[in-house]
Amino acid sequence: MKIYRVNLTKGEVKTEDVPEKYAALGGRGLTSQIIADEVNPTCNPIGPNNKLVVAPGLLSGTMAPSSGRLSVGTKSPLTGGIKESNSGGTVSQKLAKLGIKAIILEGQAPDDKFYFLKVTKDGVDLEPADDLVGKGNYDVMAELQDEYGDDSCVMSIGQAGEYRLQSASIAVTDPEGRPTRHCGRGGTGAVMGSKGVKAVVIDDTDAPGVTLADKDRFKTAARDFSKILLGHPVCGEGLPAYGTAVLVNILNEAGGLPTKNFSRGRFEGVEKISGETMAETIEARGGKTTHACHPGCVMRCSQIYHDKDGEYLTGGFEYETIWGFGANAEIDDLDAIATMDRLCDDIGIDTIEMCGTIGVAMEAGIIEFGDAEGAIGLLKEVKEGTPLGRIIGSGAGFTGKTFGVTRVPVVKNQTIPAYDPRAVKGVGVTYATSTMGADHTAGYAVTANILDVGGTVNPLGKEGQVDLSRDLQIATAAVDSTGLCLFVAFAVLDEEEALPKVVEMLNAQYGLELTVEDVPKLGMSILKAEREFNIKAGFSSADDRLPEFFETEECPPHNTKFDITPEELDEVYNFSMKSITSSR
Amino acid sequence: MKIYRVNLTKGEVKTEDVPEKYAALGGRGLTSQIIADEVNPTCNPIGPNNKLVVAPGLLSGTMAPSSGRLSVGTKSPLTGGIKESNSGGTVSQKLAKLGIKAIILEGQAPDDKFYFLKVTKDGVDLEPADDLVGKGNYDVMAELQDEYGDDSCVMSIGQAGEYRLQSASIAVTDPEGRPTRHCGRGGTGAVMGSKGVKAVVIDDTDAPGVTLADKDRFKTAARDFSKILLGHPVCGEGLPAYGTAVLVNILNEAGGLPTKNFSRGRFEGVEKISGETMAETIEARGGKTTHACHPGCVMRCSQIYHDKDGEYLTGGFEYETIWGFGANAEIDDLDAIATMDRLCDDIGIDTIEMCGTIGVAMEAGIIEFGDAEGAIGLLKEVKEGTPLGRIIGSGAGFTGKTFGVTRVPVVKNQTIPAYDPRAVKGVGVTYATSTMGADHTAGYAVTANILDVGGTVNPLGKEGQVDLSRDLQIATAAVDSTGLCLFVAFAVLDEEEALPKVVEMLNAQYGLELTVEDVPKLGMSILKAEREFNIKAGFSSADDRLPEFFETEECPPHNTKFDITPEELDEVYNFSMKSITSSR
Repeated sequence: MKIYRVNLTKGEVKTEDVPEKYAALGGRGLTSQIIADEVNPTCNPIGPNNKLVVAPGLLSGTMAPSSGRLSVGTKSPLTGGIKESNSGGTVSQKLAKLGIKAIILEGQAPDDKFYFLKVTKDGVDLEPADDLVGKGNYDVMAELQDEYGDDSCVMSIGQAGEYRLQSASIAVTDPEGRPTRHCGRGGTGAVMGSKGVKAVVIDDTDAPGVTLADKDRFKTAARDFSKILLGHPVCGEGLPAYGTAVLVNILNEAGGLPTKNFSRGRFEGVEKISGETMAETIEARGGKTTHACHPGCVMRCSQIYHDKDGEYLTGGFEYETIWGFGANAEIDDLDAIATMDRLCDDIGIDTIEMCGTIGVAMEAGIIEFGDAEGAIGLLKEVKEGTPLGRIIGSGAGFTGKTFGVTRVPVVKNQTIPAYDPRAVKGVGVTYATSTMGADHTAGYAVTANILDVGGTVNPLGKEGQVDLSRDLQIATAAVDSTGLCLFVAFAVLDEEEALPKVVEMLNAQYGLELTVEDVPKLGMSILKAEREFNIKAGFSSADDRLPEFFETEECPPHNTKFDITPEELDEVYNFSMKSITSSR
Repeated sequence: MKIYRVNLTKGEVKTEDVPEKYAALGGRGLTSQIIADEVNPTCNPIGPNNKLVVAPGLLSGTMAPSSGRLSVGTKSPLTGGIKESNSGGTVSQKLAKLGIKAIILEGQAPDDKFYFLKVTKDGVDLEPADDLVGKGNYDVMAELQDEYGDDSCVMSIGQAGEYRLQSASIAVTDPEGRPTRHCGRGGTGAVMGSKGVKAVVIDDTDAPGVTLADKDRFKTAARDFSKILLGHPVCGEGLPAYGTAVLVNILNEAGGLPTKNFSRGRFEGVEKISGETMAETIEARGGKTTHACHPGCVMRCSQIYHDKDGEYLTGGFEYETIWGFGANAEIDDLDAIATMDRLCDDIGIDTIEMCGTIGVAMEAGIIEFGDAEGAIGLLKEVKEGTPLGRIIGSGAGFTGKTFGVTRVPVVKNQTIPAYDPRAVKGVGVTYATSTMGADHTAGYAVTANILDVGGTVNPLGKEGQVDLSRDLQIATAAVDSTGLCLFVAFAVLDEEEALPKVVEMLNAQYGLELTVEDVPKLGMSILKAEREFNIKAGFSSADDRLPEFFETEECPPHNTKFDITPEELDEVYNFSMKSITSSR
C-alpha cells in the first residue's frame, strides 16, 4: 500500500511507502497518529502547517460487512484540538481497493486558488477546480461523476468549506452519488478549504483490490460476523426498519430529548417527527425506508426521503438531525427538517453543529422557537456567506458569545448532540471528556443507559457512568480504526463471539496474530496519542467539563442536574488504575 | 472603609466591613484577589456566577500625584481568564474619599432589565435605568451628571456593553465629565452589561475623605515624589508636551510600528499621524495639547482634540489608538482616527481591540486597507448591533475565525497592541506570558527596549528579554495596586529615590512599615493569584505563546522573527529561581 502526500503550497504529489509503524494502523488509529506525529499542536488550524489526513479503515475494501467507514484526521478549527471525523459512503472502499493507505494534504494553495484531486490506479493528480468554486456539494458531485463515470466517487466541500467556517464538513458520496454522508464534526471541511482543495474524485477502475493473507479464513470470519449482525435486534431489525430515527420516541420517553435549546427533555410535537412517522411518510411517498450508505452494509440504517410531490429531497436523515432541527428548535414539521438536512448536506456544514446553533440563535431572539422558515433562512445565510451566516456557520459557541447567550450547549466549543447529559449521564461523561469535544459517537453510553445493550446502567444515577464511558471510548477508538461502522458495537457489546470474529478478519487479512485483548490496547493507545496532542495544544482538565448550566439548571421531566464531579470526570483517563470492562 | 456588595439577582445591597486579609490591598491587588477568592474560574463570564469588582487604588483620594487609577476585576469574556483593567478619570478618587474599599457586583438582573447604582456618602442604591438603555456613553454621562450635579462622576457602558460584546469597555468620566477614559480591555463592559448595570454615578458631596495615619509624613513624601516626576524627561516633559502619541514617530523609527495588520514595522503615512502633527493640529484649532485625566496628575498626558470647525471631537486620544486606526489600517487621516476614537468611547468598546479587529477585517477583504469611511462604518455597525457589528465587537480573534483569516494578532484571544513583538521582543514576551492576554501595560518593556529607560536591552536580540519582561510584570502588578498611573514607572525605573517615596506614602497613609523589598513581593503574589485562577480556568503554557505568524513571517524593515523559544517564555513565571531585577 501507498501513502500519497499532496503539498498544495508546491502543487506537488509524492508517493511514499508505508512506514513500519503505520503498517497495522488504519482509520482513526492511522489518521490520529499521523496528525500527532506531523502537526504542531499549536499551529493555526486553517494555516499552512495543519494537515488533513484521509484514510480508509483496516477492513475497508474487503467483504467484511459494514466496513466502509472513511476516516479524516486534522487539527480542528472548531475545538482547537485533534479531530477524527469518520463517514460512511463509497470512498473508503475505493481508496482501499486502490491500495491507498492514506492521503495527506499539507501546505496551502497560493492566491486562494482551488484544486481537486484525481485519484486513480495511476496515482494522484492535482487539477484546477475553477469551475467548481462556489458550488454546493450536490452540483460538485454530479459534475465530477458526470466527467469521471459511474465508477467514480467524490469527497468535496460546499460553500462553508470554501469560507473556512468552523463547522464546515467534508461530504462523501453515497451509492447514488449524492452528498448525504459527511465527515461532519469539528470543521474538517474548513481545513480542506484552507488547503485549497474543493474535491477529491476517486475512480477505482482496474484497481488491484485488497490483498488478503488468508482468503478462506477471512471469508468464514466475515460470513460469521455478518450473521451475528443480522441476528441482533438492533443491528438486524431496528436499524434497517427505522434507521436511527427510531430513537426520537425512545429518547423522548426517557426524558432525554433536548428540547427548546436544552431547557427540557420532552417535546410535545414528538409524534410528528418520530422515526415511525418518518417511515410512514417515506412509504407513502415512494422513498426508501432502508438503504445502505455503502455496498456491503447489512444494517442499512439510511433511507431516501421524498418530498410531498414524490421527488427526492434528502437521504442519510439521522436521529440527531431530526432531534436538533426538530425538538431542540421546537419545529414539528418533518419536511422542513428534511429541507434543512438537505441544505446542510449541500452547503457542507455539520448538521449537529447547526442544530445546536439554531437553538442558540432562537434563544438569542434572532428568530423565534418553532420558526421553520426562519431556520431555513439562517442556513441560506450560511450558504451566502453573509455576516449572520458566518456567525451561524461558526457554530453554537460562537453564536452564543456573539449574541450574549449563556445557555450554550458546547464542550471544547463543539455542540452537544441529541441526548441530554442530565437524563443520560453516561453520555454526559463522554461529552465532557472525549478528545473530540462533545461527541456522542465517541463513547455511546446510550447503549447501557437507555437501550439495555451491553448491560444496564441507570441513566439518571451517578454509579457506573465513568467506567461505562471510559470502556466505550476505548472500544470506539479501536472500532473507528477498523472501518467497521460503529453500529456493529450493538452486537459486539451483546454477543461474546462477535469481537473474536473481528479480530479473526484482521488476522486473516494482514497475517497477524492479534487477540481480543489487543483491541482495548489499540483503543487506549489512540486515546493517549489524541489526548497528548490536546494537552500540547493547550487543553487541560478544565476543558473536560460540561457547560455550567447543566450543573445549575434542572432538566424536566426528571428534574435532574449533571452531578458527576470534576474529580470523577478526571478518572476517565485513569487507564492504569482501572481495568477495562471493570464495572458492570 | 467599607465594601458594598450588590446582588443584582435579588436587587439587594449589603455593606460589609473590610476583612483583615484585604486591609492592605487596593487596586489590582484587591480586585484580582477578590475574583480569585470568590469566582469559580470555569464559570460563564457573562452568567450570574461571575462578579465585577471595582476598587480605587491604595493611594487614590490623597494628594499623592497621579494616583487616580481605578481598578476593575472580573473573569474576562474575551480571554476566559482573570482580568484586571484600570483607568484614569475621576471615579477612583471619589470612591476613596467616600471610604469605599470596593464595590462587588454579583448575580444577574432578572428579565434583562438595566439599573444604575447611585453611590453617595449614605451608601449605594439601585435605581432603574430604563431611560438610559440604548444610549451611548456621552449621553449617559451627561444625563446622570445633569441630574446629580457637577460634583458627580460616572462609570457606564454604551451599546456594546448592553449587547455583552466581548470587547465592551467600561467608560469613566474625565474631569469634563466625558467618557474619554476606559477600563478598556478584556470585555469588562460585557460583564457589567450581563449583570444589568448600565451605570454607576458617584457623588462625593460631604465625603469624609481619606484618613492619613501621619499627615505630615505623607505630605512630605508626596511633595518629594511629585518633584521626581516633574524632573524626569518622560514624566515631566515628553508626556505633558505630546501625550503618548509621541511614540508614533519613535516606534516607526524603531521599525516596530505594526502596519497593514502586522505585515511590516513602518508606515509611509506616519508624518500625518504623528504626535508632533497632532500637537500642531490641536494648537491650530484651539484644543488642549496637555490635560490631566484626573485632578492632581502632574504628567497630564491627555489632550482635547477639536475638529476642523474648532468643536470638541475627542480626548484621551492615545498612541495605541492612533497606531491601530492609523498605521495598522493604513489610514493617514488624523481626523478620521479621532472620529473612530470618539465612536469607540461612545459605544463603549476597547479601541485597541477594535484596532486589531479592523486590521483583520481589512485583511479579510470586508473593507480595503486605507478605507477610513469603511472603518468608521464598521464601528457604526457595532453600535447598531448588526450581525457584522457583533462580529467586529467580538474582537480580532473572532473576526479572524469568522472570515477565515490566519494573520490574527491575538494572545489569549486579546489583540496585540502597537509594538511589533518581532521588533520589540521584550514586550513580545509580555504579550505571550501576561495573565491578561496580550497587554503592553502588563510589562512595558518598550522602556529598556526603545526608550533607554531603566537600562537598555537590544529590542531585536533575545538576550535579557525574559528577565526584563518578568521584572516589569512584577513591578506593574504592584504599581497597579497603588492607584498610581503606570507612567510613574518611567521615573521609578530611572531614579533610585522614587520607589522609597511611594513606600513612604503608603506607610504614612496606612501606618505600615513596608520596605522597598515588599513591592516586588506584592507584585509576585498578585501574579501568582492571577495565574492560578487562569490555570483553573483552563490555561496552560500552550496559551503563553504568540500567534504562529510571528515565528514564520519576517517583519520589515529589520526582517526579524519572534525567536524567544517556548522554553524561554516558560521561564517568566519561574519566580523562585530568578531573583528580581536580576539581569541588567
